[in-house]
Amino acid sequence: MSLLPADRFFSPDPAQKNVAGELYAQVAALPLVCPHGHVDPRLFADPQATFGSPADLFIIPDHYVTRMLYSQGVPLEQLGVPRLDGGQVERDHRKIWHAFCENFHLFRGTPSGIWLQHELSEVFGLEERPSAANADRLYGTIAEKLAAPAFTPRALFERFKIEALCTTDAATDTLGHHQAIQASGWGGRVIPTFRPDAVVDLDRPGWPAHIAALSEASGIAVVDHASYIRALEQRRESFKTLGAVATDHAAITPATGSLTPAEAEAIFQRALKGQAAPGEAVLFGGHMLMEMARMSVEDGLVMQLHPGAYRNHNQALFQRFGADRGADIPVGTEYTRNLLPLLNAFGNDPRLTLILFSLDETAYARELAPLAGHYPAVKLGPPWWFHDSLNGMRRYFDQVLETAGLYNTAGFNDDTRAFCSIPARHDVWRRASADWVAGLVVRHIVDMDAAQEMVTALASGLAKRAYRLT
Amino acid sequence: MSLLPADRFFSPDPAQKNVAGELYAQVAALPLVCPHGHVDPRLFADPQATFGSPADLFIIPDHYVTRMLYSQGVPLEQLGVPRLDGGQVERDHRKIWHAFCENFHLFRGTPSGIWLQHELSEVFGLEERPSAANADRLYGTIAEKLAAPAFTPRALFERFKIEALCTTDAATDTLGHHQAIQASGWGGRVIPTFRPDAVVDLDRPGWPAHIAALSEASGIAVVDHASYIRALEQRRESFKTLGAVATDHAAITPATGSLTPAEAEAIFQRALKGQAAPGEAVLFGGHMLMEMARMSVEDGLVMQLHPGAYRNHNQALFQRFGADRGADIPVGTEYTRNLLPLLNAFGNDPRLTLILFSLDETAYARELAPLAGHYPAVKLGPPWWFHDSLNGMRRYFDQVLETAGLYNTAGFNDDTRAFCSIPARHDVWRRASADWVAGLVVRHIVDMDAAQEMVTALASGLAKRAYRLT
Amino acid sequence: MSLLPADRFFSPDPAQKNVAGELYAQVAALPLVCPHGHVDPRLFADPQATFGSPADLFIIPDHYVTRMLYSQGVPLEQLGVPRLDGGQVERDHRKIWHAFCENFHLFRGTPSGIWLQHELSEVFGLEERPSAANADRLYGTIAEKLAAPAFTPRALFERFKIEALCTTDAATDTLGHHQAIQASGWGGRVIPTFRPDAVVDLDRPGWPAHIAALSEASGIAVVDHASYIRALEQRRESFKTLGAVATDHAAITPATGSLTPAEAEAIFQRALKGQAAPGEAVLFGGHMLMEMARMSVEDGLVMQLHPGAYRNHNQALFQRFGADRGADIPVGTEYTRNLLPLLNAFGNDPRLTLILFSLDETAYARELAPLAGHYPAVKLGPPWWFHDSLNGMRRYFDQVLETAGLYNTAGFNDDTRAFCSIPARHDVWRRASADWVAGLVVRHIVDMDAAQEMVTALASGLAKRAYRLT
Repeated sequence: MSLLPADRFFSPDPAQKNVAGELYAQVAALPLVCPHGHVDPRLFADPQATFGSPADLFIIPDHYVTRMLYSQGVPLEQLGVPRLDGGQVERDHRKIWHAFCENFHLFRGTPSGIWLQHELSEVFGLEERPSAANADRLYGTIAEKLAAPAFTPRALFERFKIEALCTTDAATDTLGHHQAIQASGWGGRVIPTFRPDAVVDLDRPGWPAHIAALSEASGIAVVDHASYIRALEQRRESFKTLGAVATDHAAITPATGSLTPAEAEAIFQRALKGQAAPGEAVLFGGHMLMEMARMSVEDGLVMQLHPGAYRNHNQALFQRFGADRGADIPVGTEYTRNLLPLLNAFGNDPRLTLILFSLDETAYARELAPLAGHYPAVKLGPPWWFHDSLNGMRRYFDQVLETAGLYNTAGFNDDTRAFCSIPARHDVWRRASADWVAGLVVRHIVDMDAAQEMVTALASGLAKRAYRLT
Repeated sequence: MSLLPADRFFSPDPAQKNVAGELYAQVAALPLVCPHGHVDPRLFADPQATFGSPADLFIIPDHYVTRMLYSQGVPLEQLGVPRLDGGQVERDHRKIWHAFCENFHLFRGTPSGIWLQHELSEVFGLEERPSAANADRLYGTIAEKLAAPAFTPRALFERFKIEALCTTDAATDTLGHHQAIQASGWGGRVIPTFRPDAVVDLDRPGWPAHIAALSEASGIAVVDHASYIRALEQRRESFKTLGAVATDHAAITPATGSLTPAEAEAIFQRALKGQAAPGEAVLFGGHMLMEMARMSVEDGLVMQLHPGAYRNHNQALFQRFGADRGADIPVGTEYTRNLLPLLNAFGNDPRLTLILFSLDETAYARELAPLAGHYPAVKLGPPWWFHDSLNGMRRYFDQVLETAGLYNTAGFNDDTRAFCSIPARHDVWRRASADWVAGLVVRHIVDMDAAQEMVTALASGLAKRAYRLT
Repeated sequence: MSLLPADRFFSPDPAQKNVAGELYAQVAALPLVCPHGHVDPRLFADPQATFGSPADLFIIPDHYVTRMLYSQGVPLEQLGVPRLDGGQVERDHRKIWHAFCENFHLFRGTPSGIWLQHELSEVFGLEERPSAANADRLYGTIAEKLAAPAFTPRALFERFKIEALCTTDAATDTLGHHQAIQASGWGGRVIPTFRPDAVVDLDRPGWPAHIAALSEASGIAVVDHASYIRALEQRRESFKTLGAVATDHAAITPATGSLTPAEAEAIFQRALKGQAAPGEAVLFGGHMLMEMARMSVEDGLVMQLHPGAYRNHNQALFQRFGADRGADIPVGTEYTRNLLPLLNAFGNDPRLTLILFSLDETAYARELAPLAGHYPAVKLGPPWWFHDSLNGMRRYFDQVLETAGLYNTAGFNDDTRAFCSIPARHDVWRRASADWVAGLVVRHIVDMDAAQEMVTALASGLAKRAYRLT
């Protein structure tokens, strides 16, 4: 039996499965639209770039994978994750690969398990589940392929039929890799996304250094709130020049609210001296979301908001290995009151598109769908991070769509740094979408004509429209 | 294919679908019991009243419909929604109808889409989905029918087999329309519900004017807390005289707690002068819920509590068009601690029935079902507002029934101001109920005899019992 | 038709049902592992102990049963629940039984209904639903059986194939019944669990008396924080001597955080004098969770945390009948921030196993699964209390497993004081597990080999491993 049967993930009910299969067939091969993610643009700047070893590709940088192994007692050192202090970690990538394969059962029923299996099968032609027994053989086969020209990032970009790939880039990034990509004449559309968190979050260690970098990147001496705003506007324009269509903002809460110019200036000056008072970072963050919404109204960049992750919950691990190691844990997130100032200022403005994400599913039906189903500016992003899964998608469709309506959503994005998992992630979404719409068809809620339009919109149309990826 | 197939909304599994169909058949034609809603009693006071144009009936007053169109960029002016300042809005109802029809795809998969299709088909005999192409023809057909005697409110009331219709009426309402209905000799049972929010919520703009109206309506000069209470008691009695069986209370939180007589008097006096301190409205509201529960114990009116809506979230829209325009957004709602004072005072009293509603589904399994499954006074109302949908009902059954038990729920109410949608809403509930009970049957959790009793109770028996609609 | 058909509780879809049946068959008869519960050890200390009357067994002590009857207006007095003041309650157990039988329809669709039916059928061979008509006959049959040697607790323990049964015991309990069991030479494994709530919760009425009891039980004069800690360590060792593998901790929130020695000592001394300040109980409770985690690291006892129940919500009922009468109501529960101190101190330590439970299902996907999917020390307990039900299990599997992975869960425990319901509860879990895994098989997410390992782990392997029940 194939490890990737054609009707996988569909409802077992024969009637629904048939309809789902028919709908899926219509969208399975559509080009991939990737409006939000974390792939390193360096991969495409150099035509000769490669993915390294199988462990480099599948394990070491992927915190979805390493967190699960870590939770079951495998030290990150044994998985080759680099230590900040340069201390010794496993350097034999075959051993790292072996630790992964012998623990592959831990990924049963998880989205990581599904993506990994898809990558092995569809990208590398390996129709086996990893295990201690086949680890060496799989390693050899994958390593051999990764060395071949057909497996460079650019080659796979084309093979995957990616129509557009948006990366995520610091406000202070001068986007050299993006410039190189565009200067190279290669046809792939890889564009930056403006993510100013490091220069907006006053609590970020080294914030003044980030401000210095902002001065340098923008060519504007940032000495006060006004020059800070001008520098940010300059950077946005610079991102737009390289094709950017969106900005992205993370925050532990989506609190918004304008400070007076005097308040903003006073906080800014204290922060420059490292003397911001407790709580001022939250006030300033809420103020900057207002500013960013205003700029989006003016320059047309779509605004994404990703709130609700408590970052680096495991402090010992953070000190040893740094951020993004699988220790970010969600917290409950309130949108109705927090977004009130921003939506009252800009929510009725047709020039703004604000795409909201959530790690707190309780907000789907209670707050997010009613907001998206009312404010012209609001669209709902797809299920995010821990919820980017078959069940997460089902819960999202179930809880969002009746109130928000399909056309107030922003389709799918893969939000990944694992480039080779992109087709797998879109395939899961397209299958889950087709199955959900099929459920509406077999219960006679929508007819087949409408269903076909809906799955096409879900596969890529809604994302292109929401992100203005024309 | 019919737009309303006989087995719509049932599970696609053939076994479950068969049982669901059998159970549904048993309740499909039962009279409709409507213990809570917002239909205007004026419609029934005058035997010659009509519904106006198709746009008057389906679009202009229905914020479920207008909010969705607004969210996609259609201005409310274009939909003929009247402006508070009397400014110009679309007056050509055919154009309004056209804007609705050409955007009908926005309602795919939404409860509004289901209700609208049901009304067109079952009430007006139109087996077509609205579209730009058929908009004019549909308008003509509907307008013609609406002018006919068979389509007056009273005629449709009878055709819909409505056993009782409870309206929602301000405490200061002298219920002239209800008096006219009862004086007319017409056999329809239309009865008022006592909703004192405007005289209880100290933060309500113009609260002193509402108190003056209360004095006038009750014939009791309201000058202090004691006379205020007496006036409210008088109004309740007056509502009872016209057949009222229940009261209804909205609040942003279900906080309850008695003030001392001195505290209540002091706040009341400050409020009369427009000088209530911040936070006093919440204290007073919690105090008045206690008073209302006490009155219900004494006069036997069933008490409904609808908390958790942040009203008029979109302030610009509110200033332009007023309340109830689709911009009310739910907030997280806590019941366990908030209801503690009220339930400790009255929760064990068999004379009280307190029906709880929620816009926060997270409270279903966590708080509401345990409360209803313990306190004799507590019953759970059906899924409310955004959750009055196929998925909302499934989540409600799934999360409430195992802990609360079926017999601690209050059945269904349609909670609508859109009179012609009443049969559609009850039909969705009856189908969803039948399918849910069928799921218990095919999994051998209940037998068919029990299932038949359960769907009958869900269709109308539980509502009649909870609301004492004998 | 049998009241317990072989395929009960499985999905109606024939393909999924077949796979579920195949998987269930593999685990249906496995011995029962019961790592957490509230069965009275006295039942096994005396070989001649009996369960009393049918009302003693099924009704009077079971707050799941009495709360539902109470919610529908049956006074607890009528159910024979003893009053604290010794006031009169029903003493005719046939009448109590009759009240239960004639209201058996209240349990339709509830887990209690399922368990009761299972017990009647599988333990007592009664293939009838209780009703007013058969109440007397059922009573006679059950009473007769309960008097027979085959129905003593020890006999049923063996018939139920219980591999290990953990009770829950106060820190001050000197475990006489457990000693008697072990001295008796009987082969059943019944072991205590260390539950120190009464000596840890400063707000508990009579806390100083509990401390006096702790001194006596431990032989250590508890006069300050240091001797208090030593006494607790002594009691844990004493529990271990009798086979204990775990501790258990209840709290309204899972707040954790160390006090300084001086702070802890000061609060402890004030509490000894009954002078703890408001809020100090919470601080001290959070401190003691840190201490208990430290002790678990040192002595190897698995740590269980059961937060989120608002105890004795109905104060009048509490004053009349005492605790555990069905009036405990859950509250929203936050884990991410509350557990931060504890997990940063001990979460990476492989010597600690911390099993987390929740009455707030919103934490499953948002907080608990991400925590369990990262920290080596954290495992998730099964759906608890109100969520120990078919739907509760489905929601748990749906929301937990994709992110936490199966192997970061702790399998099942029955958590019951109703000994005869233990097989029923495990059977529901095994059926729900098999059906859930079958859903993964038919959607091609796992293959049948993996599925077989998964259901076996769920049936008992995960519990044995998590609780170190070797």
